[in-house]
Amino acid sequence: MKVVTFGEIMLRLMPENYLRFVQADKFEATYAGAEANVAVSLANFGNEAVFVSKVPAGEIGQAAVNAVRKYGVNSDYIVRGGNRLGVYFCEKGASQRPSKVIYDRAGSSFACADKDDFDWKEIFKYAEWFHFTGITPALSDSVAGITRIAAQTAKENGLTVSCDLNYRKKLWSNEKAKATMSEILPFVDYCIANEEDMKDVFGIETENNDVTGGNLNKAGYVEAAKELSDMFGLKGVAVTLRESKSANDNDWSAMLYTGGKAYFSRKYSMHIVDRVGGGDSFGGALIHALLKNGEAQYAIDFAVAASCLKHSIQGDFNLVTESEVSGLMKGDSTGRVQR
Amino acid sequence: MKVVTFGEIMLRLMPENYLRFVQADKFEATYAGAEANVAVSLANFGNEAVFVSKVPAGEIGQAAVNAVRKYGVNSDYIVRGGNRLGVYFCEKGASQRPSKVIYDRAGSSFACADKDDFDWKEIFKYAEWFHFTGITPALSDSVAGITRIAAQTAKENGLTVSCDLNYRKKLWSNEKAKATMSEILPFVDYCIANEEDMKDVFGIETENNDVTGGNLNKAGYVEAAKELSDMFGLKGVAVTLRESKSANDNDWSAMLYTGGKAYFSRKYSMHIVDRVGGGDSFGGALIHALLKNGEAQYAIDFAVAASCLKHSIQGDFNLVTESEVSGLMKGDSTGRVQR
Amino acid sequence: MKVVTFGEIMLRLMPENYLRFVQADKFEATYAGAEANVAVSLANFGNEAVFVSKVPAGEIGQAAVNAVRKYGVNSDYIVRGGNRLGVYFCEKGASQRPSKVIYDRAGSSFACADKDDFDWKEIFKYAEWFHFTGITPALSDSVAGITRIAAQTAKENGLTVSCDLNYRKKLWSNEKAKATMSEILPFVDYCIANEEDMKDVFGIETENNDVTGGNLNKAGYVEAAKELSDMFGLKGVAVTLRESKSANDNDWSAMLYTGGKAYFSRKYSMHIVDRVGGGDSFGGALIHALLKNGEAQYAIDFAVAASCLKHSIQGDFNLVTESEVSGLMKGDSTGRVQR
Amino acid sequence: MKVVTFGEIMLRLMPENYLRFVQADKFEATYAGAEANVAVSLANFGNEAVFVSKVPAGEIGQAAVNAVRKYGVNSDYIVRGGNRLGVYFCEKGASQRPSKVIYDRAGSSFACADKDDFDWKEIFKYAEWFHFTGITPALSDSVAGITRIAAQTAKENGLTVSCDLNYRKKLWSNEKAKATMSEILPFVDYCIANEEDMKDVFGIETENNDVTGGNLNKAGYVEAAKELSDMFGLKGVAVTLRESKSANDNDWSAMLYTGGKAYFSRKYSMHIVDRVGGGDSFGGALIHALLKNGEAQYAIDFAVAASCLKHSIQGDFNLVTESEVSGLMKGDSTGRVQR
Amino acid sequence: MKVVTFGEIMLRLMPENYLRFVQADKFEATYAGAEANVAVSLANFGNEAVFVSKVPAGEIGQAAVNAVRKYGVNSDYIVRGGNRLGVYFCEKGASQRPSKVIYDRAGSSFACADKDDFDWKEIFKYAEWFHFTGITPALSDSVAGITRIAAQTAKENGLTVSCDLNYRKKLWSNEKAKATMSEILPFVDYCIANEEDMKDVFGIETENNDVTGGNLNKAGYVEAAKELSDMFGLKGVAVTLRESKSANDNDWSAMLYTGGKAYFSRKYSMHIVDRVGGGDSFGGALIHALLKNGEAQYAIDFAVAASCLKHSIQGDFNLVTESEVSGLMKGDSTGRVQR
Amino acid sequence: MKVVTFGEIMLRLMPENYLRFVQADKFEATYAGAEANVAVSLANFGNEAVFVSKVPAGEIGQAAVNAVRKYGVNSDYIVRGGNRLGVYFCEKGASQRPSKVIYDRAGSSFACADKDDFDWKEIFKYAEWFHFTGITPALSDSVAGITRIAAQTAKENGLTVSCDLNYRKKLWSNEKAKATMSEILPFVDYCIANEEDMKDVFGIETENNDVTGGNLNKAGYVEAAKELSDMFGLKGVAVTLRESKSANDNDWSAMLYTGGKAYFSRKYSMHIVDRVGGGDSFGGALIHALLKNGEAQYAIDFAVAASCLKHSIQGDFNLVTESEVSGLMKGDSTGRVQR
Repeated sequence: MKVVTFGEIMLRLMPENYLRFVQADKFEATYAGAEANVAVSLANFGNEAVFVSKVPAGEIGQAAVNAVRKYGVNSDYIVRGGNRLGVYFCEKGASQRPSKVIYDRAGSSFACADKDDFDWKEIFKYAEWFHFTGITPALSDSVAGITRIAAQTAKENGLTVSCDLNYRKKLWSNEKAKATMSEILPFVDYCIANEEDMKDVFGIETENNDVTGGNLNKAGYVEAAKELSDMFGLKGVAVTLRESKSANDNDWSAMLYTGGKAYFSRKYSMHIVDRVGGGDSFGGALIHALLKNGEAQYAIDFAVAASCLKHSIQGDFNLVTESEVSGLMKGDSTGRVQR
Repeated sequence: MKVVTFGEIMLRLMPENYLRFVQADKFEATYAGAEANVAVSLANFGNEAVFVSKVPAGEIGQAAVNAVRKYGVNSDYIVRGGNRLGVYFCEKGASQRPSKVIYDRAGSSFACADKDDFDWKEIFKYAEWFHFTGITPALSDSVAGITRIAAQTAKENGLTVSCDLNYRKKLWSNEKAKATMSEILPFVDYCIANEEDMKDVFGIETENNDVTGGNLNKAGYVEAAKELSDMFGLKGVAVTLRESKSANDNDWSAMLYTGGKAYFSRKYSMHIVDRVGGGDSFGGALIHALLKNGEAQYAIDFAVAASCLKHSIQGDFNLVTESEVSGLMKGDSTGRVQR
Repeated sequence: MKVVTFGEIMLRLMPENYLRFVQADKFEATYAGAEANVAVSLANFGNEAVFVSKVPAGEIGQAAVNAVRKYGVNSDYIVRGGNRLGVYFCEKGASQRPSKVIYDRAGSSFACADKDDFDWKEIFKYAEWFHFTGITPALSDSVAGITRIAAQTAKENGLTVSCDLNYRKKLWSNEKAKATMSEILPFVDYCIANEEDMKDVFGIETENNDVTGGNLNKAGYVEAAKELSDMFGLKGVAVTLRESKSANDNDWSAMLYTGGKAYFSRKYSMHIVDRVGGGDSFGGALIHALLKNGEAQYAIDFAVAASCLKHSIQGDFNLVTESEVSGLMKGDSTGRVQR
Repeated sequence: MKVVTFGEIMLRLMPENYLRFVQADKFEATYAGAEANVAVSLANFGNEAVFVSKVPAGEIGQAAVNAVRKYGVNSDYIVRGGNRLGVYFCEKGASQRPSKVIYDRAGSSFACADKDDFDWKEIFKYAEWFHFTGITPALSDSVAGITRIAAQTAKENGLTVSCDLNYRKKLWSNEKAKATMSEILPFVDYCIANEEDMKDVFGIETENNDVTGGNLNKAGYVEAAKELSDMFGLKGVAVTLRESKSANDNDWSAMLYTGGKAYFSRKYSMHIVDRVGGGDSFGGALIHALLKNGEAQYAIDFAVAASCLKHSIQGDFNLVTESEVSGLMKGDSTGRVQR
Repeated sequence: MKVVTFGEIMLRLMPENYLRFVQADKFEATYAGAEANVAVSLANFGNEAVFVSKVPAGEIGQAAVNAVRKYGVNSDYIVRGGNRLGVYFCEKGASQRPSKVIYDRAGSSFACADKDDFDWKEIFKYAEWFHFTGITPALSDSVAGITRIAAQTAKENGLTVSCDLNYRKKLWSNEKAKATMSEILPFVDYCIANEEDMKDVFGIETENNDVTGGNLNKAGYVEAAKELSDMFGLKGVAVTLRESKSANDNDWSAMLYTGGKAYFSRKYSMHIVDRVGGGDSFGGALIHALLKNGEAQYAIDFAVAASCLKHSIQGDFNLVTESEVSGLMKGDSTGRVQR
Repeated sequence: MKVVTFGEIMLRLMPENYLRFVQADKFEATYAGAEANVAVSLANFGNEAVFVSKVPAGEIGQAAVNAVRKYGVNSDYIVRGGNRLGVYFCEKGASQRPSKVIYDRAGSSFACADKDDFDWKEIFKYAEWFHFTGITPALSDSVAGITRIAAQTAKENGLTVSCDLNYRKKLWSNEKAKATMSEILPFVDYCIANEEDMKDVFGIETENNDVTGGNLNKAGYVEAAKELSDMFGLKGVAVTLRESKSANDNDWSAMLYTGGKAYFSRKYSMHIVDRVGGGDSFGGALIHALLKNGEAQYAIDFAVAASCLKHSIQGDFNLVTESEVSGLMKGDSTGRVQR
């Protein structure tokens, strides 16, 4: 199935192991971004994933293109131009010390992209799904406009449209996020969000929760998802439930609200290798499962199992196959050696 | 004490840290194999360990020889010849993601070894013990024949003979394994096995067990060990009990059935650095303890403590000393810094 | 322009820096092969390069596919199946110590490929050029047969066909090479060879040369190329001229004999980073230049400049752009920093 | 605030990851020592930290100086001379395998330092605090004498003086430690110790404790601290409480006894990255908190939170800022990503 | 002697060894900039070097500060603020392949620095020399203004002022460079330049030179230096003469024109480890020699020997001592092992 | 053939690549020493090489033992005890920057070895040759005494005895060296030396030489060798001739004076990977050639070719086979790839 995603790809610079920024004399260099990550997930599951973006001409932009191309993502619609590739620095936390992400993405080629850089009708030909996240419209007014056009064009051309709210407070204010997203969400079918996203962007509060304490109020999540769903007439709202016990250990589950019903996944206790990109791997797997199977319980189970595995993989990309996800879904979570 | 082991040594290629195969642009290169691993354990405990094998002439074979020689193993009877060194690729799992081992060992110098490559009478001179695993006869009919001859010769020359069943379904069928091992086990004194081995090779089922659920039925293991022991008139059967909670966390214990009685070790909860070679380190330590002390409870305690430590060590080899094992047996498992 | 290449891709294992095999506890892992290397060169120059091959199913085969895909090579016709990916070990020489290559490729998925694995009519659709090397038919009778069919089909479908003789004495005898290549070369337009290739395969001697002494007899090369050209009615014969001064320092030039005339390039004195793949980078660049421009002097100059740059790049692949080659052709070989 | 610390700085050599000494062909090289570690903590919290020591002239000594200078420590009073920099080898433990530290510090420039190397009146100008540990006087009689002079001079010049008992049995006997420390402690205001230190140096037993069993007898610690406090008329005694569950997992808390009252911190369950330097980071943070705030409960809470974070950081130095410590004190120990 | 330098410090990202950008999955991370490099040289030679700059608050800026602090540079006047640290990507060339530098420095904290960030009177207290390069005023109008003020204040306060023209065509046009530098140079005593700088900024042509051909016209350089000297009433003009033979091999010498006379250094044939920062190391050493000795021939010899050694050192910083430079000046350029 | 060598083995710590000591945050850790290096050479050439030494008990000493054991050296007579393993720091030079070696070997287990640690009659059983260098007696009076006893015992038991003068000015004075060596050399058959050694220890001047200028006076060397030979009634004197052009490039040849005649080798121009251990590789190869063949011209040619290859190998050990040396002797010094 052909799926299109649209967003920024950045250079990710990370000290080795658990070193702090000030200790590092080497950075692991990978290339990632929320929608690029989703595209890689989809390609790994066997879809034709098209990642649409803009990177500077020259070697650094080329390296970003190569990074997704390596995993089978179609890069034909990544435009070259502009001044720089966004950068983000990522320090891996441990135990009580949190991971840190420092963005240096202002003025990037993508943030400065122009409406004419993308011919959406051409891009969406034969495609079935369009995905983006709330980070994309947050980058600049120009990119917000492009996102709206893309979502509308996708809708008009019969694609299913999904959006991961992904609110980033350093990129825009709650007010601006609400105003902008409210113009785009009418074109969206499936929305992915976590508790904070829903509250920060649309003021939807999940009641009686205590994320750090580990007592999740399931009913509260269903209420919140219903509220968001009703607000924009969505087909479905998926909510990821992360319970952080430490930088090393998280519990992970999710819920899909669709057709007026809520479907909860099982919960995984994860020992984390790299948690960045965890949410994106959930999105990519959810899209794949919905496209392929359509059944809600299967979709949420597949998405949670896939993104659980992502937490065991270094880098933003979720490098797992469909059969690996199925293996975990069938219940083998003991990590026994496979020979 | 002089102990002889016989088997293949391979190049082990492993991505760094928790990287997946498709991410790796470097492989850690070590050289290992079930019986080589046992030999290294024995040498570390102060025995004269002789590892008998065959590797190709040239640098890659030499590197394999150097790898065991470095730890004091006698390599005088490693024959040079044939076409290639077997290779195995090993990806370290984490959390719910299992470790993966991909073998590329067909056509190796060892699998193609000839009966005349080894002069067993010469090799066994002054030796007290001979050890091999079920992997060795599984490699080829030729090597199966050599193994039988070696075991018989050892027996005739007064050595104690041990065998770790180590069933590998990718190397041979249950039927072939049963037929072949049934011809060799009559020359064996001590057999090491886990639950799956006993079932896969000899159809001996351990009752009422739920390995993943963590409820081990001790009586079932004793029954199974007795059945195997009776089948071939064995002096002892050692059974390792691994409870996999995740790729990072396992519980580890074992039982030695000998003289009609079962001896259980304590159980260790391990946070794993590298679990490949864990079973071999158990075998090596068990042989050492039986050779040195003979007392069954001590032997199983020593073997489990030694192999518990192995899980904290990178690579197949168990690089611990006897006094380190003793330290753990005496109860210090808190990992406090030793200055 | 669409160009198709056909051959094996292997895992290349190389100790870091100048370490010897016996010192290495890490291997740099890249994936390469003569025709894969040519395809990457062509993709870097902006062509649609299609690499046709066969790799095992699973992660190791996938990693090989990803390696060419990363650089924009079309991997749609890489078949999955068979038992193993060929491996080659490569130790970098220095000063008087030569580089060493140890092949472990017997029984590879590609060497065991079947005629029905490849639908050449489909593959050659819209293509303009087909390239392979003498290594491919040397791997097995089956693959030799496939190569002949591919060359013939290419010819019949109007593609230009090129072949790099690339004689490897460890793969086949002079006699077998001559017999096999003599059946294939009638379908070939351009042949690439060096002095030893021509002599080893077809017994064509280049007179009065002293490769180690540095005195190249230009006339001798022209004679030899003419002889080979006449033997098979070739459009052109390209001869690379490597003068090895040490493992670090080589002189590098080439000659293209076409239309009854010989065109010599300038000569570069190279300080080598990695010389493996140097010949393949010559082939890839020659094809590109002939396809694009057709002018003989330009083609040989472009091919030599491109392959000169390859010697400064780690790995088999020539990761240079057309404008970098042009820069060197225009005479800037001083290596001044480009800011 | 200006704080002076006095002690040895050594080259710390550590195998990468969890490799054992015999596996290492690389050592991570850092420079550390108890009092240098404290100085770095203090500089990171914004103090003017002066580290007084002696290193050999030449590059290795210079590298040690640079190591503290990098983090803003004043190195003006590090004397150059003598024969060698002390070395310590450090192997990181895992699970049941303990970390190992092997010292090679005999004959170091610092151990052979001379009384005239340090002009304490000059050094203490404008300073408010002087800190050293029991390791320093243990190194040699000469250095013990210098330490006593330094402590006395500090006291006479109005500085607050702190000492971490840090008993090292490989450096001196209990008897010698007691005799020497008894001469120095009269000049000390605050003493840091753990249970073993108090017992080994002064024979003060903490009753009813079972460190490995996890049942800490709070009253016993208060008794012991009171006893030590009374012995030398101390202003305060801080006791760190480490409960080792494995080499990877420790619980960590502490108590400050001052003004006749005991203040206990909360307890942190830590997943350890590097535990060496943990005690020093406690000392550095305690000094900072006492200097800045003076309030006992705050001081012990700050010191424990800061040193908890240290356990998540590679190397001896605690590279955290005051605001990171405050964040943890305020209760966010979930390690959620900070963007 | 106290010397002040003023300029930007950036994060330098470099692939390991000779890897190209598109091959790198790690970047060596160092922190450098023309004036920071000069400051480190001066500190290594024993001066009090003060580096004045602006970096963002937070870890990345802190890492840049630590980088110079490590080598003893005074960082008290590095202001914190603004949005980002400039970045430059650097790929090491080899043989005919040139090194490449890609700047990503727009919008950096330094480029956006404000006049009020620096109190020059305070900074210049007790200082004897002020140095900057032509890169600094090229970064923004604001920084150009600050540079002019700094130069003028330095002059008025009796400091010697030096400037390295360092023309960067990607930062500004020839016209703008000429206009801006013409306002600043009246406050300058010593100017450092190479042939291209003099031509690009002031249109001063050096006659009859063929840089790539290796025939330097000494008289032409003297003429050009005299012309520049006369234009602004300079005390001295130093011209570096780099003859690039390949990316690995350069010849290196220089000339100092002062007091109406030209002083030429000897010429070194260098095998290059890292040539970036070579010019800055010349500047730093020239300032040191002029400050210390004042004699022109000695100064140019010292500066060339020091910067020759820089080319053998990885990274921008010239990590050599005065006695190492003296050793080379005395004629030992054979690189014999020093034990 | 059984050959015994006697000397210290140390931990060698070296920054990676061309990094300076102050830049290194990792050291490559190998274990080496002049006589250990010779033993490894001899083992690689197929001899039974016995290395006699003393190392501390524990892991660091064990790692040193493993290092020689890995290459097949007999380590049965390496005594365990004493306080520490000697260390040497080694920084690789480049171009005009010399390599630097900093020794930290005082107080090592070997330097403090006792006469009773070694039973020379037992050690020399079946041996044919005994080798040591002038470094060994320089380490302490005790070790000097042991060396004299060993040489005398060897002589009395019919072994051939060789000594490499290896004068180290940091270990002892010329006078002490002369006095000590004069007592030992009467038991020596073959002496290896370079020009400086002969002058520093015995005041034998080689006339009319200009090592740095590249004009070697052959007659002068013959004279000097004859003088040394006559002084102690030696069977042969071998002189290595190193012409340092830069830290990267050396010329290398040697002369063997025996039976009243001088035999000169050819000269190799080497591009150096690691020159430390070069002299030891000459000694090891000379002993092997003399033992095996006895012919003087062959011996000096073999020794120079072998040690030429050593300069292309990282680490002190010369990891080449006899056939590789023969290949170079036969004239193939072009470094062409061997497939």
